[in-house]
Amino acid sequence: MKARVFVTLKNGVLDPQGKAIRHALEGLGFAGVNDVRAGKMIELDLADGTSDADIDAMCAKLLANTVIENYRIEKLG
Amino acid sequence: MKARVFVTLKNGVLDPQGKAIRHALEGLGFAGVNDVRAGKMIELDLADGTSDADIDAMCAKLLANTVIENYRIEKLG
Repeated sequence: MKARVFVTLKNGVLDPQGKAIRHALEGLGFAGVNDVRAGKMIELDLADGTSDADIDAMCAKLLANTVIENYRIEKLG
Repeated sequence: MKARVFVTLKNGVLDPQGKAIRHALEGLGFAGVNDVRAGKMIELDLADGTSDADIDAMCAKLLANTVIENYRIEKLG
């Protein structure tokens, strides 16, 4: 079973990596880039039968820092 | 207009970050984690009318290292 976890910074949390990307895009001549937010995607290859609660626990305990980050789980069956 | 770019390592490229995550999950007691691949997600807030070709160029020139990484663009309208 495969699952994808998307980890993003919460609104209001400063994102220096995203800011650096925006400036770099401007420097390369791309106009109209209003904002960039950088996040993580983690692809998990799990044993069949891994419960949703287990995947959620993996995110809460390790994959995301829930103080400053949100996460979203997408199961690929 | 918003767009998301997903950057993943190509198959066959070693992923030490993913390996470290897998070991850490095992250490936390999660069984059945066969493999973990770490990637990036970049959320772009673009001016309306930014062409698909422009977004593709941003990926090829800056956001992804196409020697070792694949990218996928998802437009959110």
